[in-house]
Amino acid sequence: MRAAIFRNGEIVVDQIGAPTPASGQALVKTLACGICGSDLHARKHAHRMVEMAKYVGRKPMDLSRDVVFGHEFCCEVLDYGPHTPRRLKPGTLVCSVPSLVTPAGPSGIGYSNDNVGGYAEAMLLSEQLLLEVPNGLSAEHAALTEPLAVGIHAVAKADIRGGEVPLVIGCGPVGLAVIAALRIKGLHPIVAADYSPARRARAERMGADVVVDPARAQPYATWAEHAAMSAEEKAARPAFQAHLAALKPALIFECVGVPGLLQQVFEGAPRDARIVVVGVCMESDRNEPMLGIMKELNVQYVLGYTSEEFAGSLRLLAEGEVDAPAFVTGKVGLSGVAQAFDDLANPEAHTKIIVEPWR
Amino acid sequence: MRAAIFRNGEIVVDQIGAPTPASGQALVKTLACGICGSDLHARKHAHRMVEMAKYVGRKPMDLSRDVVFGHEFCCEVLDYGPHTPRRLKPGTLVCSVPSLVTPAGPSGIGYSNDNVGGYAEAMLLSEQLLLEVPNGLSAEHAALTEPLAVGIHAVAKADIRGGEVPLVIGCGPVGLAVIAALRIKGLHPIVAADYSPARRARAERMGADVVVDPARAQPYATWAEHAAMSAEEKAARPAFQAHLAALKPALIFECVGVPGLLQQVFEGAPRDARIVVVGVCMESDRNEPMLGIMKELNVQYVLGYTSEEFAGSLRLLAEGEVDAPAFVTGKVGLSGVAQAFDDLANPEAHTKIIVEPWR
Repeated sequence: MRAAIFRNGEIVVDQIGAPTPASGQALVKTLACGICGSDLHARKHAHRMVEMAKYVGRKPMDLSRDVVFGHEFCCEVLDYGPHTPRRLKPGTLVCSVPSLVTPAGPSGIGYSNDNVGGYAEAMLLSEQLLLEVPNGLSAEHAALTEPLAVGIHAVAKADIRGGEVPLVIGCGPVGLAVIAALRIKGLHPIVAADYSPARRARAERMGADVVVDPARAQPYATWAEHAAMSAEEKAARPAFQAHLAALKPALIFECVGVPGLLQQVFEGAPRDARIVVVGVCMESDRNEPMLGIMKELNVQYVLGYTSEEFAGSLRLLAEGEVDAPAFVTGKVGLSGVAQAFDDLANPEAHTKIIVEPWR
Repeated sequence: MRAAIFRNGEIVVDQIGAPTPASGQALVKTLACGICGSDLHARKHAHRMVEMAKYVGRKPMDLSRDVVFGHEFCCEVLDYGPHTPRRLKPGTLVCSVPSLVTPAGPSGIGYSNDNVGGYAEAMLLSEQLLLEVPNGLSAEHAALTEPLAVGIHAVAKADIRGGEVPLVIGCGPVGLAVIAALRIKGLHPIVAADYSPARRARAERMGADVVVDPARAQPYATWAEHAAMSAEEKAARPAFQAHLAALKPALIFECVGVPGLLQQVFEGAPRDARIVVVGVCMESDRNEPMLGIMKELNVQYVLGYTSEEFAGSLRLLAEGEVDAPAFVTGKVGLSGVAQAFDDLANPEAHTKIIVEPWR
């Protein structure tokens, strides 16, 4: 079968062996698979990713061997392995968390030499993890389940107590997913910042109440305007806080993931801000701890989602609670993947490109 | 009057003008003032401290002018300014948060050109902030109110939900205060790590249940032994977590405050650990955000304490809830301050040196 393969630091299209489902596995046809920012990172910083996986005791990729990326997929059931419950009929559209159940524990799909990811005509999934796509949701929109789940998880980990005013830094796919999750949570006003006019427009479509162009206005100043307490809220504060700025609690989502960004947040954040790091920075980073200390900042790093959050995301998409079309800005076949990796560097053109391996 | 002054990067003893209390102020005789790790930092990294104060909008020290350090003091009331309630009689022993109430808001004592700190024979305090030292607690022990409050505050900000197993990295004054606060909170076992045998002994005296010498054992491995779930706790976990290490939640207190330390914590910490940064690192620092991301770590930076926590600390000391003598390892007069700054570099010899300016 054909696949877009990560080989020697590049994405190339080649034939690989078609997978055979083992017991407990489904063979599925890959209908749609989103290109994730982490895939772009991984192509550039694969060695760092290997290093980090070793650090945290996960099985790292062997970069001398082929890897098929792709962990945001929607597929069609083709067949099952032996002794496997055939719960969903062949032809059923399914999603799954990008992981296989194995006797040794979960084995990831997407950055693995062993498990083929979504940039291939077919792949294997664990039957027990299959989620049927409901309500006739299209495959390309069902493929957004994974990136949306990242936003849902980030907002869940933000430990919202009510009354916070969120600021989303970066309106790429991760930022948009966070905005969607915040809108669903009902936290307003949502302030969002991005240099790209197209991304700001998509952020508004997704539910941001206020968008900021950091080239024109300081996002933290704009945030502060919208986080000002009312006269009653000011009056209700304890007297010893009277000298402090009368601002509602800040909840900042860092959705960019490049070195130096967290330091920028440390500089801009108001006192007592909670910062959720959703952007995946794969390089070493430098910051000024004294800023964190003097402002008593809280930093919550997040990654992934629970199975429940993943299933919930699919439901939200199927129920039309999230504007899926606002995410998808392009579609390519396998031969277009390498070009799509380059195209995604332009924030004006793209948020999410969907790979359709059957094209 | 005599004072130990921070002048041109050194501590020198010289005469300065005796202060005159304004309206709302008390003139007090300084009986005892602890030397804080921040004072040692400030002597070495005063320019960084100035930079950071500017960053966060606080009034920075003017390093071309004299500063009298000292913010951990216990004093005796001598007199009051005009139109000031004389609530506490002259001769009363008092503590206060190191801050003056001014029409422009709080004005710090200890790193200020305007307000004389505790390394001087006398100082000014705001009458309304004075706390009477109860139960005949000695001045040298009452002077521990401030450093103890730092530990009480750090543990309060740790947002303890029950069931966490704490690990305290560094058993200097800050680490000891955290251990004392954890013991009062009833969270056990308390695991504490320090290279110094003397500091480990003091940690045990303060309430640590397990102490680790990082030269001999990995603190995180020792922590893990003591954080292992019981068979019942393991059985009660959701099935999808069965592959994870069966450990109770980690609560790590970073009480060292030097560059590279937080990265060490990131490397050693288990998944989902909450890290409270109590050590004050005044230099720029580097770390690997991917470790934080892959482990979903939470970092809470803390500084200082509330007035309530400060008053509570004085009460705890007066009620004998904290082993105050374990903290105090030396006493000096003003002429001994410069030497004491050097002596404090030796963790075997010292935890806390108390300055007695009247000597």
